[in-house]
Order: sequence, then C-alpha cells, then structure tokens
Amino acid sequence: MIHDTTIEAPADRIPVVVLGATGLVGQRLVAMLARHPWFRLAGVAASERHAGRQYGEVVQWRIEGEAPPEAAALRLARPTPDDCPPATLVFSALPALEAEAVEPVFARAGAFVSSNASAFRMQPDVPLVIPEINPDHLSALANQRASRQWSGALVTNPNCSTIGLALTLAPLARFGIDQVMVTTLQAASGAGYPGVASLDLIDNVIPFIAGEEEKIETETRKILGVWQDGAFVDAPIRLSAQTTRVPVREGHLASVSVKFAQTLDPDEILAAWEAYSGLPQTLGLPTAPQQVLRYLDAPDRPQPRYDRDAENGMGVTLGRLRRCAVLDYRFICLSHNTIRGAAGAALLNAELAYARGLLAASGRSA
Amino acid sequence: MIHDTTIEAPADRIPVVVLGATGLVGQRLVAMLARHPWFRLAGVAASERHAGRQYGEVVQWRIEGEAPPEAAALRLARPTPDDCPPATLVFSALPALEAEAVEPVFARAGAFVSSNASAFRMQPDVPLVIPEINPDHLSALANQRASRQWSGALVTNPNCSTIGLALTLAPLARFGIDQVMVTTLQAASGAGYPGVASLDLIDNVIPFIAGEEEKIETETRKILGVWQDGAFVDAPIRLSAQTTRVPVREGHLASVSVKFAQTLDPDEILAAWEAYSGLPQTLGLPTAPQQVLRYLDAPDRPQPRYDRDAENGMGVTLGRLRRCAVLDYRFICLSHNTIRGAAGAALLNAELAYARGLLAASGRSA
Amino acid sequence: MIHDTTIEAPADRIPVVVLGATGLVGQRLVAMLARHPWFRLAGVAASERHAGRQYGEVVQWRIEGEAPPEAAALRLARPTPDDCPPATLVFSALPALEAEAVEPVFARAGAFVSSNASAFRMQPDVPLVIPEINPDHLSALANQRASRQWSGALVTNPNCSTIGLALTLAPLARFGIDQVMVTTLQAASGAGYPGVASLDLIDNVIPFIAGEEEKIETETRKILGVWQDGAFVDAPIRLSAQTTRVPVREGHLASVSVKFAQTLDPDEILAAWEAYSGLPQTLGLPTAPQQVLRYLDAPDRPQPRYDRDAENGMGVTLGRLRRCAVLDYRFICLSHNTIRGAAGAALLNAELAYARGLLAASGRSA
Amino acid sequence: MIHDTTIEAPADRIPVVVLGATGLVGQRLVAMLARHPWFRLAGVAASERHAGRQYGEVVQWRIEGEAPPEAAALRLARPTPDDCPPATLVFSALPALEAEAVEPVFARAGAFVSSNASAFRMQPDVPLVIPEINPDHLSALANQRASRQWSGALVTNPNCSTIGLALTLAPLARFGIDQVMVTTLQAASGAGYPGVASLDLIDNVIPFIAGEEEKIETETRKILGVWQDGAFVDAPIRLSAQTTRVPVREGHLASVSVKFAQTLDPDEILAAWEAYSGLPQTLGLPTAPQQVLRYLDAPDRPQPRYDRDAENGMGVTLGRLRRCAVLDYRFICLSHNTIRGAAGAALLNAELAYARGLLAASGRSA
Repeated sequence: MIHDTTIEAPADRIPVVVLGATGLVGQRLVAMLARHPWFRLAGVAASERHAGRQYGEVVQWRIEGEAPPEAAALRLARPTPDDCPPATLVFSALPALEAEAVEPVFARAGAFVSSNASAFRMQPDVPLVIPEINPDHLSALANQRASRQWSGALVTNPNCSTIGLALTLAPLARFGIDQVMVTTLQAASGAGYPGVASLDLIDNVIPFIAGEEEKIETETRKILGVWQDGAFVDAPIRLSAQTTRVPVREGHLASVSVKFAQTLDPDEILAAWEAYSGLPQTLGLPTAPQQVLRYLDAPDRPQPRYDRDAENGMGVTLGRLRRCAVLDYRFICLSHNTIRGAAGAALLNAELAYARGLLAASGRSA
Repeated sequence: MIHDTTIEAPADRIPVVVLGATGLVGQRLVAMLARHPWFRLAGVAASERHAGRQYGEVVQWRIEGEAPPEAAALRLARPTPDDCPPATLVFSALPALEAEAVEPVFARAGAFVSSNASAFRMQPDVPLVIPEINPDHLSALANQRASRQWSGALVTNPNCSTIGLALTLAPLARFGIDQVMVTTLQAASGAGYPGVASLDLIDNVIPFIAGEEEKIETETRKILGVWQDGAFVDAPIRLSAQTTRVPVREGHLASVSVKFAQTLDPDEILAAWEAYSGLPQTLGLPTAPQQVLRYLDAPDRPQPRYDRDAENGMGVTLGRLRRCAVLDYRFICLSHNTIRGAAGAALLNAELAYARGLLAASGRSA
Repeated sequence: MIHDTTIEAPADRIPVVVLGATGLVGQRLVAMLARHPWFRLAGVAASERHAGRQYGEVVQWRIEGEAPPEAAALRLARPTPDDCPPATLVFSALPALEAEAVEPVFARAGAFVSSNASAFRMQPDVPLVIPEINPDHLSALANQRASRQWSGALVTNPNCSTIGLALTLAPLARFGIDQVMVTTLQAASGAGYPGVASLDLIDNVIPFIAGEEEKIETETRKILGVWQDGAFVDAPIRLSAQTTRVPVREGHLASVSVKFAQTLDPDEILAAWEAYSGLPQTLGLPTAPQQVLRYLDAPDRPQPRYDRDAENGMGVTLGRLRRCAVLDYRFICLSHNTIRGAAGAALLNAELAYARGLLAASGRSA
Repeated sequence: MIHDTTIEAPADRIPVVVLGATGLVGQRLVAMLARHPWFRLAGVAASERHAGRQYGEVVQWRIEGEAPPEAAALRLARPTPDDCPPATLVFSALPALEAEAVEPVFARAGAFVSSNASAFRMQPDVPLVIPEINPDHLSALANQRASRQWSGALVTNPNCSTIGLALTLAPLARFGIDQVMVTTLQAASGAGYPGVASLDLIDNVIPFIAGEEEKIETETRKILGVWQDGAFVDAPIRLSAQTTRVPVREGHLASVSVKFAQTLDPDEILAAWEAYSGLPQTLGLPTAPQQVLRYLDAPDRPQPRYDRDAENGMGVTLGRLRRCAVLDYRFICLSHNTIRGAAGAALLNAELAYARGLLAASGRSA
C-alpha cells in the first residue's frame, strides 16, 4: 500500500522514450526530461523519414533556449518498440492518427504509455487523467489490461484547452456545477509547428479550431466524472465552448461562466481555489506545482505574457471573478498550453504512475 | 410627413464641425466626410493646446492613407461654438469627460450634435440610436428640448462593442431574446491613440477593458427597448459580457450565446439576419450598408483581417451559428469598431436626422 | 511605329490565363484582373490535384475582401496549354521549379508569358523588366524567339524585394551609382501562403530569406544594365544585401546606403525622385502609378501599414534621406510586395507588351 | 594592487538604491538585484508624485514574473539623497532630463552612481564603460572627482543598441576597423513603458528612433577609444547607423557590415569572437556572461525570441558571417536590450567598480 507522502526517487533514473519528439510538445518533453530527477531520456522517435538521423540535426527547436546536448546527440528511432531503446516508460506526443496506430503497439509490448494524443482519450477503458483531479481513474487500467491483453498500459492527458478549465472547475465541483459556458483565446503553439500561418495571425484572430470545442465539452465531463462499477460515468455538466486562436505564443486564456446547483458567495469560490491541492502535491511529484490555482486581484489579469509561467508553467492563474447576469459567476483562467496543457501533463501522469507503482508492473524487458 | 424613400441630397452640402478631430474616431470622421455627398467639413476642433494650429500639422494620422488635404488645411478651433465656424451639425468624438462639458454647450447654441461619446448615452432624454434598429427613439428629442431648453439637440450612438451585437440581436428580437452571453475580442484601435502600449499586446491579450462590459450590458438593453409614454423602457434581456483586448488593429469580434423565449430552427435565425434591413436602407442614406448583416458559411469566419471592411466597414459579418449546450444558439459576430462602431455610427445618425428633417429644425445661425 | 501617348483600350478585353492562381500572388492577379480595362480573366490554373474544381472552392483567399465572383466560378485547369482556355496572354505566379517546366510550354505554344517566377529571370535572352526603368530590354525578345523557336514569348519581373530598390535607384543612375548597401525588413506575404509559421513571427524577426539576397544583388544589376549588341550588360554597381522577415503583412521596407561617382546635394536626389516618370506614365498604362516615387518629409516615414497602399500599391515611398558616414547617402524605401513587387509588376509588364504591340504578335489560336 | 582573480563577496551585502525604479529598466534592475550576491536593494526612488507609496502598488510590472516581494514592500522615495536610504551605490534608470539634474546630486553626496541614462555619457570626464571592453576608462574618475568636486562618482553604460555592437566589434579592433554600417531592428521595450503605441507596431515597423543613430555612432567610438593623457580619444571608425523599431518585446538585432584595415579570413573573425573574454570573466563578476559572444552556425539565426536569453540575457549572439560586396564582411548580432543593453550593463559596471575597490572610496555616510 502506498502512503501519500513524498515519494523517493528511483536509485537509477528510469529510461524513457519520447515518441513524436520533434514536434512542439515533444520538444517540451525533451526539455523537461533533461533535468528530471526520476526519468532519463533514453530514446527519441519521430516519423520514418527522419529515422537514423541525430535529433539535434532534425529538430527545429521552437521553444526557449536550445535542445539539450544529450538529447541532441540521440539518434532518431522509428516509432516502434524494436527500433527504440528499451524503456519502461514511453511518452507519446504523436499526432492523433499516428498515435492510434503506434501507442497500442508499445502498450502491448509492455511499456507504460503516457500519451498527450487525442486518439484514445474517450475510450471506455483508457484513463484521461489530471493527477490533482482524478488519480483514481487509473483503476481502469486493470480493465484495460484484461480487455486488451496488454502487458503495458495507456494513460492519456486531456487537450491543452481542457486542462486549465478542468483544474479550475474541480475544486468547485463540491458546490454542484450545472452549466459551464466558455470562450477560449488560444495560443499559436497549440497548433504545433509550423501550425498556423503567420498571415492568419498578424492583425487577426481565428474563431475556430477544428475539433477543439468537442474536446473541451466531452473531456471535461469525463475528467470530472467517476470510475464506478467498471465504467466511466461523466459528470452531469452542461458545457458549451467557443474556441478562438489569437496572436500569442503560449498560454490559453478562457472566459468562463458557471451556474451552480446552490447559492454561493464569491469568497467560497476564492477559498476553494486557494485551498486546492491534490495527490501530486501530497506526494511531492517533481513536476507538480506547489500552488495549483492562483487568483490575482489585479483587475486586468491573468495575461498570457505575464502569468503563463507561474509555477514553471504548471500552475493555473485566475482572475476577474464576478457575478454573471446570465449564469452565476464569471471569471478568467489561464494556463500554459504546452507545459501544463501538454508536456507537463503527460509528465505528471507518468510521475503519478511511478509513485503508484504502476511503472514497475508494466516494465518491458530489453 | 417624410415618405420613406430615397432622400435627395441638399442643394449645398451642409457645413459640419468635428469635435475631437485629432483622435482616432475623429480621424475616421474626417476621412469619411471628405467624400460625403451631403455634408461638408467646415471646421475641426481639438483640445485647447492645439487651437490655432493647422489640423494637418497636429494630427498623428493613424488610419490608412493620409489626412484629406482640405481637412489638413483647416485651423484647429477650440471646442466652443464661438471658436468653431457656424455649423448646423456637429460631430463629437470627444473623450467622455470633455464631452460632458462641451456637448451641451453646442446643443444649447442650436447645433444638432451627433455624439460618439459615452457621457450622455444613458440619460433619460437622450436617444441612443442605431438607425436600422431604433430610429423612433429620436422622438425623445422633443422631451429633450423641452426639459433642457436647448435650441439644438443631442443624439448619441453606442459603444463600439455594443453596435455589432445590437445589430445582430435586433432581427432576432421578434423571437423573444431572454438571455445573452458574450465574450469579445476587441481591436487595439478601440482604445484610441496611443491607447494600449505595444508591450501589452505583443504576444499577449488583456482580459479587461475599463467600463466596457457595463456599456455592452446597459446600452444594448436601451437600444433594443422602446420609447414609450415619454420614457425609455429597456428590453428585458439578461445580458452578461466579458471583454478582452487582442493584437488586432481594427474589428471587434464577439462570441455570443443567446437563449430565446421560443424554440427556433437555425434557418429561422439565418433568414432573419439575411432579410434584415431598416430605415437607412429604405431611405438610401449615403453611409448605410446595403446588406446590414452577412452570414458566412466558411467554418472559420468571420475574421477581423478579412471581413471587417465589408460594406466599407458598415456591415456586420456573422458566422459559426450552432446550437449551444447551455443557452440555445452560439455564433460569432464581427464589426469594424472605428467605422460601424464609431465614426460611421455617428455619421449615419446625422444622415438619419437630416432625412427626418431634424437638422433644419436645429440650425444655428452664424 | 508606336507613339508614346496614351494607349487605346482593345475593342474586346483580351482573354488571359493565370497560372498558379491559388497562391498569394495569383490571388492578387485575379483581384487586379477583375477590374482591368484591357484584360479579361478567362482561365485559372493550379497544381494537378486541384484541377477540375472551382477556383472559389479551392482558393484560400488571403487578401482583402473576397475572390471576385466571376473568378470564383472558373474551373481550375491543369497548367498546360491544352487544359487552359485559349489565351494570348498568360500570367505565371508559379513556384520557381514548376515555372521552369511550365512556362516554356506556354511560350512555345504561342502565348505571351508574363512571369513573376524566378526561374528564367537571369537567362541571357529573357527580359527582366520594370516598365519605368528598362522597357527597351523587351528588344531581347527577338533573340529569344530566334534561339528558342518559340512563337510566343517570356518576360519576367524581378523579385518583390528588388523592385522597390531598383525603382529608387533608377533615377539616380545618371549620377553614377558605385555602391549600394541594403538591409531589408520584409513582409510575411513575401513568403506566400502558408509561408512563415506564426510561431516564427510572434515576438520575433528572422534574419534570413533563402536566395533573396542573391536575387537583390544580381537582378538589380541586370535591370539597371543595358541590352546591347544582343546581350544584357549588367550595371557596374557593387551591391550588398541583408534580408530579414518581420511581422508585417504587406510592404517590404529597405534601409539603403548609396555611394555615387560624384558629389551630390540632397536636393538633387530629391528632385530626381520627384521628377521620375517613365513609359508607363507616358503611355497611361492602366496599372501604372501616377507618381512613381514619393518622398515623405515626416521623420518616421515611410511605414508599411500607413504607406504601402500609395498609388493603389504601385507607388514606392521614400523617406529619411541623409548623409551616410560610410557611403554617401542613406534613406528608407518601401513598396507593396505583392502588388508593386509581384502581381502589379507582372500586370504592368503585360500592359507594356500590349502597348508595344507584342501581344498581337504572340497570339495563340484556339 | 588588485589581482585579476575571482573576487570575494562582501561580508554583508552592500545596500543600493535604484533611481527610476518603476520604469522598465528600473524593473529589470530590481529583479536582478533580488538575487544578487553582493548588493542588497535598500531603496527605490521614482518621480515626486509616487513618493511615499509602496513600490509594489505603484509599479506596472512589465517583465516576466512578478515584482520581488522585498522590493514590492519598499516605500518609494523622492530621487534625492536625503529621501533615499543611505547607499554606497546608486543605480540610475532615470530619463535623460531627470538624470541630468539628479545624478550629480548623488555623486556630490558621495554615492557611486552607475547610470543607464544618456545625459552624461559623452562628457569628457565621465567613463562610458562596457567592462569587457574598456574597464581602464574608469581611470577618468580621478579627473572627474577633481574637476567636479564630487566625493562620489558617476559611471555610465551605453545605449541599448550600442552595447551589442560594441561587444561584437571589440575583439575585431585588433584587425583595424575602418568602417561600420549598421541597420538595427529594435525591440519595443527599448522605448520603455508605455513606449510605442500598439497601433504603431501591429502589422508595422517604424524606421526611426529619436536620437538613437547618433548614440550608436558616437558612443561606439568613445567605448572603443582610449583614455590617454587625461582625455578620451575616440576610435577612428567611420560608422553609419539606421535604426528601426519592430514588433518584438525584447532583443535588438543588428545587420552589420565592416571594413577592416587588413585582409582577413572569416576564420580569423570567428576565432576572435569565440575567444573573446575580458575582465568580468577573469574576475568572475556575478552578472558576467561566461561566453561573451556566441556564433550560431544555423543560417537563420540569431533570432530575438530564441536567442536573446543566452547567458541569462548577458551574452551576445552572432550569425550569418559572410563577405560583403561593398565593405568586407557582413553579419548579424543580437543582444537583450533591457538586460545586456541596460540593467545588466549598469549592474556589471557596479560589480566592476566594487571589484576595483571604487565603491569603498566613494562610500557616503548615513
């Protein structure tokens, strides 16, 4: 039995592989793994055509600084268990279509796959996890293993625009959330690289991101729902989303209105946010933010440029809480889309899995 | 009695004065007046410290092209009836505080003041007019004249973020609008010049515009309401707004959700928008758009850069109509904030006033 | 013999075809042809995979307004003379590699090809023309026809960053230009669509554009050179270019320093620019700017946003002329890269060809 | 006598005051001092109207993260020695006009003033110092003290656009630099806050920064010159600058061409840059970059977004070295304008002064 206290680091750092390592989320993973206390980047994989070349030569590094030298020196493998170095833990930052084909192969071969891809998120035996919110959804892995005959496992994290919203709503769930209305202002990096053409974001915004609104609406309900009697039961929230793309590099901002099942004072909401903490904080997971949610009193915050890096990009920043004339309350939330919303999310899921002893169970022999 | 048919141009163009002519909205007015068939720019006024200097020397022209030569040659007057050339019609693009002091002086002196300023919009005897929607609100001018002892008149147009929304809602009012939820993405020009610092809009958005949300909520209700028994009665709509500033030059975009009093098909909404037309179109007012509202079928439109100039900036562009999981329908609307949302609004109000014979009545002798 | 007076429009507008019509320069051509007095858009061609579909369905319109309805209704042809409708005049906005294969086929089939592509610009029998500067280079077409056995002809216009510079230097050539140093700040549209990724131009500039510096250096010398004894002789100018990409939609700005063969007063330069006019102005070609070069006295102009549309985008705007401590004079020049620098350039070349009777000669029968 | 070895930290951190602490450079200083091993922020001063209020309430923090809590709690003083807490060392981030009045008062009162302001940079007894290049210019302080009767001292650092250029040229000086041509692309933060209006930098660049070109031309010659027989002798370089403002937050990029007194291979230049190191590196000054100049081989680097933070913003990044057809060599250099170009420059000068024992000498009693 695991006691919820700070977890000890492994004696040797656990070798991990990143699939889709040349993409923007893959780059973030590579950067975050370079200084990780538990995990060691052992392999990187990308599409067939780059296989065999050095990561540092192929990658178009599009985040701050430069590719870590150790990563840059790695040879790019094909995204197959045979071509990648042996690894207990595999991160997937693949596009959805590739993920659909590749991730099961690794899970079947015994790897614990922590995926940022959307391909399997809504499957009935695949946990969609934000460790602060629903770590118990990992219980579904027993069903997954049984039904899929995998010696490994597959755990997913939500879409970049879902995570900030779900973390903001989670501590309010106890009040009963009936309805949620959201309009997002999302950063260019959410579309990967090259992603959005500069001509579409100079002096412009785009009021559409393919598939994004459905993801917010369905994923949020699954995450805030329960794993019960061998099935995920969605939270009974009516949720409506409009997504837009704005000329910002990083940081998804959301304008949110919520209707609760009961009457609330703003102070109750602020207190719930302030106090919010979960298993990652209790366990002291290396990538976990100390303060998950932070409310700013300034009337014009949060802003992407100034607030997205809170808690090394793993915190969610809130502001402008006030009564809503249509639903009950309005507010703004902001999260770093490629850290908290993608790479950091997958990393935190893997840390949770390690802390829960789930990696050992899924170890794959060389 | 006026027949609602195309209005004849005046024999001689009517001399007009623009107050606040050096600001961004003032510049738009000056540009639009340079080629106006009914009105002739006779004078420009700005703050005391510029008085006496040539407009062309003082103005920092921040819209396309250059200041019209005739305007550039004008001497900047003080914003007083004595210092300005005689004019039947006065446009005010003054800041609210100045407008509060200056506009009544001109109205008292006999001018018809068409104001873009917020100072008097919500006053019980001041019409807040969008000519397509509530031209009958001009009836309040009789009361205004009586109570204020003005030989002239004061008519206002709404805030730049209100106009697009109100025009979009107006044709839907017949279905009964219960609730409206809106999040705006507003252009930098809405803050005037210099307005927002570039450091605040490079790689950033700002989720706050002072006073803007209240304006949207209160002005929309007044415009969609009625003038009845000597008083304005607000439309009984619950309206909630979140405003944001984005790195766009011109064009306010709004994400809107609406709850109606009755069940509707999307086709009914589209048909109502498509067919929408008002008095400016019937009268053939020079600045009136031919098609007031235009719905785009493309999934990612309207976009500020590509759609704001529809109908010379006087049209409103719509898109993405779909059912809303919380209210009834969601959609996007876009309008040009310094044309339809400000200068063009004031101009259209003045054209309506001329067509209705209200300018003659308020003529001020030299 | 042609008299250099205003040219009469053809009785019927001449049918033309645009190759590469879906690209950004192709779109500009389509837009400019929609209202052209001499030419009528008869056909559009793009890559094989779009052939047969309607232009309006395929094109991602990325310039102001919308695709002209007549153009939108056209069926996209393959870029072959057989698949395109018969046309005396063919505009090529193809990528260089495709242009290399396709343009000769049309020229051989009898079309007069006005090309914006770089493939043939530096060929010894292909005129690289800016009509104000070197219309006499069209004399090379006789050699071209003889050597290549084409019944048609191929004329090219320079790179978008070369045109503004060449037009600026042309009137100074009489003073003797020895050396030119240039650093450009080029707009995103110069890279086409999708072109530069937004992540590379939000809060960033890129100090490199592949092949661009060589084009500026070689093309400028050819344009300012002479056609003599059956060969092009470059102007003996030492020219050094650094190109950069900046977050601007349209308008290439250049910081230029020039060393002359003689001592000059600034007034002589200003006068030469002011007076500059060429054959397009004399002939009254429809797309020709009235004032080719315009010098702005304001200390901070020209600026892309405010000045690029001068003369409908066909004028070049200059500013900041002053002595240079290293060479003789420094200044700034600005031109609209997809109009004066591309689509308008190809169009003006075609108008010149028509005025010179060169289209008739190269007519291709259906 | 000082040996050029690593300097020991003072037993107690030296109390310092920042004048102009609410501006953008002041904010950087405050942020950098929050974690400084030698200096302790004891006081902050700004304009009269803010005096007495808490720094955290007044400052509009416009750099990453938030104002350090210790700084935020400080009371803003008037910029006078009496109102500020006693401090041996005073940093000035004042505007030039204020600096002209205020800095001498502090120097007279005994403080060592490290100023980022331009007011005194070109004075014949004021060192204009970049510690890697001309630490010996501090010898002028003896003259300064004598002539001005100050018990303290005043040392200045160059303009933000000069520093990167001067550091790049310094290691090449041994080859003999005859001529330098530069065009800069400068970040918005160089103009302070609010600085440039967003309307002037959305879809735009500005080819003018008041006074900036003269500063580059004169300051560079002074820095690369010598202190000799009691006077500064400029380096005999002909230098011509064009400055532009681009939509970038931080990082000034320069396109540079250089003519040398002798023939050079590119490898000699690269080697000189690579090996460049100065007194700050030898002494191990806390803010000194380890590698002063770094050359990137990638054809499209350096870029502001990706390279400005090299060496915590204290390194200069170079790229694109190649022969120039007009002068001898061209290249690109980039430096962080508010760190290496301003706050870090002033800080490094102060560290040098401490290491040289110049602070003790100028200590001011409480």
